[in-house]
Amino acid sequence: MNKHYQDDGLTLHTDLYQINMAEAYFRDGIHNRRAVFDLYFRKLPFSNGYAIFAGLEKIVQYIENFRFSETDIAYLRDELQYAEDFIQFLQELRFTGTIRSMKEGEVVFNNEPILQVEAPLVEAQLVETALLNIVNYQTLIATKASRIRQVVNDELALEFGTRRAQETEAAIWGTRAAFIGGFNGTSNVRAGKIFGLPVAGTHAHAMVQAYHDDYTAFKKYAEAHKECVFLVDTYDTLRSGVPAAIKVAKEFGDNINFNGIRLDSGDMAFLSKEARRMLDEAGFKDAKIFASSDLDEYTILHLKAQGAKIDSWGVGTKLITAYDQPALGAVYKLVAIENEQGEMEDTIKISSNAEKVSTPGRKKVYRIINRINHKSEGDYITLWDEQPAEEERLKMFHPTHTYISKFVTNFDAVHLHHVIFEDGKRVYELPELVEIQAYAKQALQLLWDEYKRSLNPEEYPVDLSQRCWDNKMENIQKVKDEVNRIKHSEK
Amino acid sequence: MNKHYQDDGLTLHTDLYQINMAEAYFRDGIHNRRAVFDLYFRKLPFSNGYAIFAGLEKIVQYIENFRFSETDIAYLRDELQYAEDFIQFLQELRFTGTIRSMKEGEVVFNNEPILQVEAPLVEAQLVETALLNIVNYQTLIATKASRIRQVVNDELALEFGTRRAQETEAAIWGTRAAFIGGFNGTSNVRAGKIFGLPVAGTHAHAMVQAYHDDYTAFKKYAEAHKECVFLVDTYDTLRSGVPAAIKVAKEFGDNINFNGIRLDSGDMAFLSKEARRMLDEAGFKDAKIFASSDLDEYTILHLKAQGAKIDSWGVGTKLITAYDQPALGAVYKLVAIENEQGEMEDTIKISSNAEKVSTPGRKKVYRIINRINHKSEGDYITLWDEQPAEEERLKMFHPTHTYISKFVTNFDAVHLHHVIFEDGKRVYELPELVEIQAYAKQALQLLWDEYKRSLNPEEYPVDLSQRCWDNKMENIQKVKDEVNRIKHSEK
Repeated sequence: MNKHYQDDGLTLHTDLYQINMAEAYFRDGIHNRRAVFDLYFRKLPFSNGYAIFAGLEKIVQYIENFRFSETDIAYLRDELQYAEDFIQFLQELRFTGTIRSMKEGEVVFNNEPILQVEAPLVEAQLVETALLNIVNYQTLIATKASRIRQVVNDELALEFGTRRAQETEAAIWGTRAAFIGGFNGTSNVRAGKIFGLPVAGTHAHAMVQAYHDDYTAFKKYAEAHKECVFLVDTYDTLRSGVPAAIKVAKEFGDNINFNGIRLDSGDMAFLSKEARRMLDEAGFKDAKIFASSDLDEYTILHLKAQGAKIDSWGVGTKLITAYDQPALGAVYKLVAIENEQGEMEDTIKISSNAEKVSTPGRKKVYRIINRINHKSEGDYITLWDEQPAEEERLKMFHPTHTYISKFVTNFDAVHLHHVIFEDGKRVYELPELVEIQAYAKQALQLLWDEYKRSLNPEEYPVDLSQRCWDNKMENIQKVKDEVNRIKHSEK
Repeated sequence: MNKHYQDDGLTLHTDLYQINMAEAYFRDGIHNRRAVFDLYFRKLPFSNGYAIFAGLEKIVQYIENFRFSETDIAYLRDELQYAEDFIQFLQELRFTGTIRSMKEGEVVFNNEPILQVEAPLVEAQLVETALLNIVNYQTLIATKASRIRQVVNDELALEFGTRRAQETEAAIWGTRAAFIGGFNGTSNVRAGKIFGLPVAGTHAHAMVQAYHDDYTAFKKYAEAHKECVFLVDTYDTLRSGVPAAIKVAKEFGDNINFNGIRLDSGDMAFLSKEARRMLDEAGFKDAKIFASSDLDEYTILHLKAQGAKIDSWGVGTKLITAYDQPALGAVYKLVAIENEQGEMEDTIKISSNAEKVSTPGRKKVYRIINRINHKSEGDYITLWDEQPAEEERLKMFHPTHTYISKFVTNFDAVHLHHVIFEDGKRVYELPELVEIQAYAKQALQLLWDEYKRSLNPEEYPVDLSQRCWDNKMENIQKVKDEVNRIKHSEK
């Protein structure tokens, strides 16, 4: 077993093959060739009609701190035994490339580059793993949160999942992503501290147990806190919990703000209706009912359909782990690389599955917005030098089923990429989290409701320009010819 | 929106309600009463017959560093506006309690305390969230890895999931947990560095694309690296990739160790059989076939059933996210607390669901091992002062279906808890990771194969002693009486 080294940064948070490729490039002298990688996912999560991009802030932190630490170098040298000249090279290495990305909170779709890295080959390669790790998770959670926001409408939605999150970073970056997707706050105090997220929470069953009964526990809580929400299901919700909450609220009167009760188990539809009736009868019509018990967009929709009297939703496990689909499959594909002559050359990754074939070339992504109704007609991916905004009439066609097409006129073509790093320098100012949340909300307004339905949404068009499509077909043909040539020369 | 503070520790990695309860206890002066909490889960993950406990090492780190930092205090004071006396109290707070826990790598079951915290109420409460966050995820992944280990037998299994993990900590602690569960290594270099895990990996599709063809890429790789595994599916596995790998292996001869090829897409059963034939015909009978493509215990079992010729398994997404059940539901329940007279009093949490009722009292967990066949008869939970090892004949009965019972004689009763912290001081030395892995393997040998089947395993007995069971029933009755009393006094 190897020696252990101190954990002091994320630069080694990469797959070993990235370093082995880096060494091969370094030996061959091609490590500084300019390369362009696209980061995108092929399938929307949860069969949703859109995704909400999150992760850029952590990517910025990661890139700004990209340097192999002393312990990284010691490990690579002494344990993995890389050659000294390569070690020296890594020691000096900083990120000097350009990163273009959509904004955090942007509404994004499958098969469009969310983020683009253009950098010396070796740098672009080494950052792949961390970039994917960050984008995949945070985008997944922002999207899940947005789905839940669609069903709770404008009611309070709080993220309560830390104890079930997949380790500590998921808890905090996940709850931040949930906020971007439309949540109002979190129970995680650390996330409140470092991101400025609103934090929420009152007490647990343990407090009721510590005082042996609901009434004493609620009273003790009220003696210490002005703002009170009592958890009523420790022993018996309707026979003990709710009556005790009402009793304490009456006794304390204006000394507390009796904000309501929380239900955490049992049949939420039945209990909430009964509790509502009891609270109303006792004169607490403004007291809210908070619910938290393995909730997600499906259970919430069903509770609402049954007329549950719930005002606020605490969502834990199902949100913070994206329980029904706990991974987004974003990939990072080489789309162009400098050749021996110093010219950029497009590259492609072929697959027997048509949808898995990458789209070659350095590209731009435009959102095509109808000037009359201010709704989006779809996204339009072009080669680098195209100017769709200057065209009067745009032909948009499905990139796989090309016979599905439409012509668009009177539109704005909004370029969705922003330059985040230029030649290694950050040139983008990170927005405040509230701005990101507001941006996501606004970006969703461009979408017809048909794309936002949580079940069976319409497929949003993500189309290639004619030139971009032609270029892809040419590259596919080139690979086919090459494979045939090899096969024949083998015979 | 709040001010942002530097992220400098995990002490605030807790739910807000823990701090609000802490304040209520502090105001009431009961914060230092001794409390006992059990950490356990109610249901085994993946319908598996057992789980593998992981997370203790990170818990030790967390507890040893438990103190509110200056920025924590500033945030609590300035943003959350807790009262100054309580702030002062938190500032001085350290963990002074006792933690008893099963060893990492232990085979654990539902409804038995894996870990026990006995501490001043306020301390035990504040650490709950982080403890659950850590144990839930790491135990889940160790268990998933162990399931996969059961189907791959003694073949090489590598963890490749960083890019799909739920943020950065899940990637590294998850791969460590996978090692505990029986994996051989990881692609994550940072995990290699900090935990001493064996790391593995050669090259990606991007390298083949960068050189435009398989042959050139493999050659360049071989020029830089002695140990070679070539990824053969970038363009066409059987027509281009495998032939190119064979060609390079022949050309380089003894200059490289041609360890084999990796398949990452397409029909693994078909491709592996064809590739095996081609490698064998070319004289590379020792070259291994590595597979990696959305694998888990189910796909591996089916590939093996179809006679796939795969020697080594790279498992990513499905392992590192525990895709088919991405959360374990461990809970942390108060089971005893000091009363006003300074005596310990048992507490219970009631639920309409029988399996959700907690088991009151400070308890011990014994594994009852048959001295003849050295297999485990089940786990046996007792009250603190029982000595099952001294009994000649043990009655073991199902804690819910009490008519299911058996008598055991000629057994060893092995106490599974170890004291990790005693009055705040660590008294336990953390084992090396290889020892933990070896311990897990050995602990599994105590189990009959029937409990280890990945589909529909037998239910392993986790039983309560008669006294422990009687005590639970008495506590349930006490709560029922109390709820009735309240109800009647309300009328």
